Amino acid sequence: MLLERLRSDSGALEAAAGALATISELYPICRSITGDGVRRTLDSIERSIPLQRHEVPTGTRVFDWEVPREWNIRDAWIMDPNGKRVVDFRSHNLHVLNYSAPVRASMSLDELQPHLYSLPERPDWIPYRTTYYREQWGFCMRHRDRERLAPGRYEVVIDARLEPGHLTYAECIIAGTTAAEAIVYTHTCHPSLANDNLTGIALAAALANELRTQEPRLTWRFVFGPGTIGSLTWLSRNEALLPRVVGGWVIGLLGDSGALTYKRSRLGATVTDRCAEHVLRASGVAARVTDFEPYGYDERQFCSPGFDLPIGRLTRSPNGLYPEYHTSADDVSLVKVDKLAESLQVLAHMFAVLDANRRCVNLQPKGEPRLGKRGLYGSVGGTEPGQFEHALLWVLSLADGNHDLLAAAERSGLNFELLEHAATRLADAGLVRSITGEPVSEGKAKETHASC
Amino acid sequence: MLLERLRSDSGALEAAAGALATISELYPICRSITGDGVRRTLDSIERSIPLQRHEVPTGTRVFDWEVPREWNIRDAWIMDPNGKRVVDFRSHNLHVLNYSAPVRASMSLDELQPHLYSLPERPDWIPYRTTYYREQWGFCMRHRDRERLAPGRYEVVIDARLEPGHLTYAECIIAGTTAAEAIVYTHTCHPSLANDNLTGIALAAALANELRTQEPRLTWRFVFGPGTIGSLTWLSRNEALLPRVVGGWVIGLLGDSGALTYKRSRLGATVTDRCAEHVLRASGVAARVTDFEPYGYDERQFCSPGFDLPIGRLTRSPNGLYPEYHTSADDVSLVKVDKLAESLQVLAHMFAVLDANRRCVNLQPKGEPRLGKRGLYGSVGGTEPGQFEHALLWVLSLADGNHDLLAAAERSGLNFELLEHAATRLADAGLVRSITGEPVSEGKAKETHASC
Amino acid sequence: MLLERLRSDSGALEAAAGALATISELYPICRSITGDGVRRTLDSIERSIPLQRHEVPTGTRVFDWEVPREWNIRDAWIMDPNGKRVVDFRSHNLHVLNYSAPVRASMSLDELQPHLYSLPERPDWIPYRTTYYREQWGFCMRHRDRERLAPGRYEVVIDARLEPGHLTYAECIIAGTTAAEAIVYTHTCHPSLANDNLTGIALAAALANELRTQEPRLTWRFVFGPGTIGSLTWLSRNEALLPRVVGGWVIGLLGDSGALTYKRSRLGATVTDRCAEHVLRASGVAARVTDFEPYGYDERQFCSPGFDLPIGRLTRSPNGLYPEYHTSADDVSLVKVDKLAESLQVLAHMFAVLDANRRCVNLQPKGEPRLGKRGLYGSVGGTEPGQFEHALLWVLSLADGNHDLLAAAERSGLNFELLEHAATRLADAGLVRSITGEPVSEGKAKETHASC
Repeated sequence: MLLERLRSDSGALEAAAGALATISELYPICRSITGDGVRRTLDSIERSIPLQRHEVPTGTRVFDWEVPREWNIRDAWIMDPNGKRVVDFRSHNLHVLNYSAPVRASMSLDELQPHLYSLPERPDWIPYRTTYYREQWGFCMRHRDRERLAPGRYEVVIDARLEPGHLTYAECIIAGTTAAEAIVYTHTCHPSLANDNLTGIALAAALANELRTQEPRLTWRFVFGPGTIGSLTWLSRNEALLPRVVGGWVIGLLGDSGALTYKRSRLGATVTDRCAEHVLRASGVAARVTDFEPYGYDERQFCSPGFDLPIGRLTRSPNGLYPEYHTSADDVSLVKVDKLAESLQVLAHMFAVLDANRRCVNLQPKGEPRLGKRGLYGSVGGTEPGQFEHALLWVLSLADGNHDLLAAAERSGLNFELLEHAATRLADAGLVRSITGEPVSEGKAKETHASC
Repeated sequence: MLLERLRSDSGALEAAAGALATISELYPICRSITGDGVRRTLDSIERSIPLQRHEVPTGTRVFDWEVPREWNIRDAWIMDPNGKRVVDFRSHNLHVLNYSAPVRASMSLDELQPHLYSLPERPDWIPYRTTYYREQWGFCMRHRDRERLAPGRYEVVIDARLEPGHLTYAECIIAGTTAAEAIVYTHTCHPSLANDNLTGIALAAALANELRTQEPRLTWRFVFGPGTIGSLTWLSRNEALLPRVVGGWVIGLLGDSGALTYKRSRLGATVTDRCAEHVLRASGVAARVTDFEPYGYDERQFCSPGFDLPIGRLTRSPNGLYPEYHTSADDVSLVKVDKLAESLQVLAHMFAVLDANRRCVNLQPKGEPRLGKRGLYGSVGGTEPGQFEHALLWVLSLADGNHDLLAAAERSGLNFELLEHAATRLADAGLVRSITGEPVSEGKAKETHASC
Repeated sequence: MLLERLRSDSGALEAAAGALATISELYPICRSITGDGVRRTLDSIERSIPLQRHEVPTGTRVFDWEVPREWNIRDAWIMDPNGKRVVDFRSHNLHVLNYSAPVRASMSLDELQPHLYSLPERPDWIPYRTTYYREQWGFCMRHRDRERLAPGRYEVVIDARLEPGHLTYAECIIAGTTAAEAIVYTHTCHPSLANDNLTGIALAAALANELRTQEPRLTWRFVFGPGTIGSLTWLSRNEALLPRVVGGWVIGLLGDSGALTYKRSRLGATVTDRCAEHVLRASGVAARVTDFEPYGYDERQFCSPGFDLPIGRLTRSPNGLYPEYHTSADDVSLVKVDKLAESLQVLAHMFAVLDANRRCVNLQPKGEPRLGKRGLYGSVGGTEPGQFEHALLWVLSLADGNHDLLAAAERSGLNFELLEHAATRLADAGLVRSITGEPVSEGKAKETHASC
């Protein structure tokens, strides 16, 4: 099975250390849903994995939406009546309402107040706020600083441009031996926030980098794009390949100290969900599984009723459920290397199981075949056979074309990898053939055949 | 949503007080499965709601049955050897075995005994017994009085007529904006018994009276008819409309102090059942839900395998499960106005939810539509949206034509009314269209389209 | 319903005493998968029930297998350097590795050791080991004796023949009134082991003997054959009748003190499984129900995906789960007559329920039919009817062609036999007709009609 190194404790920890270095490097960049911050982020990722980069022009129709203008910012500040920069973009890029319109003005404190965002209950943290879909300007600041603002005239400057340009996303595609595909999506639009979502970007890159050296069954497509409009854009440009998608995950928020949280696809009980839940159970890590709800990250788009893809989501603490979420306290210090490693290890298992999972068809389905004469069974009878022999019997028994290896693992209580090995040995012996690729849904059954 | 007044505490209590007055007025009438008692009862109901009255001739074939003769009674008594009326119809109409054949005879106590019914374990109560389908005569009496009967000759008189006539039932039909129908059936055949079933008659009338002033989606058909032969007769005359029936309830026994009891349809998990169970859960009242069993009231006929309608039943204490059941102790004092009000309020909610429930089809199903540009979503991002925004997302997510608003309420944990409001706003914005009317069963799918 | 005597405590105990005598008589015979031991066993059984015996020639193709040579043994021993028989077939036939190749040789203890099997943790028990599918020779012995073997030359003799011949199995077929069949399979290949499986053989014979005197609905086919190759051979020669098989059980290991254990068919929830689980629940005996797994006895073959028959398995302690399993300690003293009787009584119930179970079709499905005019219901109304009337209503309500009497028993909580009686009365009254025979699976629905 794939990703053996990342599935090991030591390999996952080593790769997590590398991912943490990537996170630190990318942290200062001011990203948004469009603009050079995303491009610089992808430049950095491209040093470790090959990327196909896509630039989609402003104004392109994307279902009910359109690609917005490109936003780039040079500087921004609020200068108080004494000429002191009380808010300064250069000290923290969260200070600017993300995607803010440019402004250059002088105004009273009262006029300024409606443009300020702060957190009274967290007075030392700068909130992260956005205004993608209405043109306005604003600043986010520590509430403690806001309370110190004295009456008087303030100079406000946001030296930004909102101009026709492009939305940028990138793919790293690792070709498999079958036509079936798996999608991994992570959002790239957040500025200086570490857990959300440099962890997703860095772990996706680490997984893609390892997969590149292997021979997966599925084609693995890692997509790095902005939230919402990015997944919508990707979907609108890839509708033709969706019938080939057998599973995948939106990943992000993978380095904080909260427990791993798996959010099911809208369909629920898809192979993706069964795979994730099996790995979480089998791994024994503390983890929660939650049903789909239509609020969250890009799974909202993949699971909208017009697509209804078997795409789940893995995070640690979900959106909104850790205090530092969408504030300046979501910095690199929030990301723990052991948590990153645990996330990576679980993801590597999930990918390996999804890739190896398949239905088998028993080519000798009437009674048991003679395993002994094929060297698969001991020759003295009368005692209980070992686990591997049990695994062979389970694979043969469920090789009716309706059950996959995950079903055999769930029903038998045996280890997935042992069953996978049994299925491979049975295929080598000519006793089963494999069907790779799970239909997206009952109604759209689709199969791709592969030699085991 | 419909019936807002009756869904409120104060409105329900006010209407329950009116219903209690109706119950008191109707209590003295001697009803049976046929005859003038039923007609007088309907006359009274007709003062508040319009009724379509039906008279079905004796001898009419009704499936395996036929409409029986009409029974009318003037007087009845047992006179003891001293000339004293020891049993007197005029003091309580339960004294006569209901639907008894006429008799005028003199006999010894030994000859009389086989015609007497009493309750040794409840010596002060008169039992209610019937003899609809075998011609015989009899008297019901307090066991204490029966024990005092001395040997000697008794004169027995039942001044009744069993003659060709009609079976009487009535409907109050409130037309809806779609072809789909809901049925409310309550039995009218019991003589002086208050909880069973003047409560059902009075609450059905109160609900119909309120619905008349509104614009339901469904056509609501309230049927006032005798038990068993009444529902059979109605079914035999209305087979053509049954495919349009999306739900409904048999109601009765709604004023005693027992907990509300919902009995599922035979099919179980129909929209009717889901609706009732949702309302009971959401209302927080003490309530039981029981599976269908083929004994009970008119749900027996609606749920017989040849019809298998999505008809459940709401009572408080079910048939046979309160001590006063089918005895003279089931009088007006057993009916509590607060219990009547609670029953009414729950029924009003059930009717409102059934009427408002619908499946939606997302007209922009690929990805989420832009709610912000339609004024349905806030403009500054980064924070959790409110409940209404969540309701919009849930309706859109489940607007795949397979899920109804009840499913959205069950899955989201959000209030049904909030989801209904979200669905209406989304329909106004052109983002969904509604499908009203649930197929009676999987095999007989039928849809009626309506604008939301 | 069938088998009334064996369903009673006294009848079961009496028959169990007879079965225990049979077990004692058969215990000394050295059986194997082929050979005269099986024939002598069948000769004995044939004294109580008629058998159709089948001799299948060595070399006959059986799916992936072929019928092996016939094995017969006269004598075997190991003689120590002092000329003492330290292992002697005549003292216990487990001493020879079952189906061992003949040998006549002299060798050192070191050369002998790889051919010896013993149980260090049970030094006084002789293990039972087999070598059906690889030609080798060996001896099984008490570990205590093995430890006493001194260095020196040993003479080993196994005076056996492995020659072309036949595989022997037998059937006792009791014709039913419908085309549907039930299978009872018990394995005959074990030498001197009492619980495994002379108990299965003796109880199968007792049940067949009783059924012969009755008129079952189903054709009951009792098969006495060796494990694995026996069921495979039977399946290969009876493929044409498999579509008629509505249920059945592999039985064995029925006399030890462990709790009854029901192992479901691979399909699970077949009529066979529902029947067995219903009887176990209703009987109130201590019992376990386990899901199918592909290791065990002949259910492995019946439930292989190419057949997938509704065949479960009843044992007391399952294979491998009692200490004496496959050792000389599984002797007649391990078999308790009260446990045999309990097993027999439960089997008799299971057979009776499977045979009586049927779906009914309501011939008056619109509303309830008038039971009173057919003498099936009391004439005075107003009180709760009795259990039999409830049973009538349940049968009518579920007589939709989709539910069988077992479903009515499960849903109503009423006794199966009462429901069966109600169904018979309703059929006599022309109100229902019966459908006997449950489809083997959804996909291969098959019905046989029978008068009730």
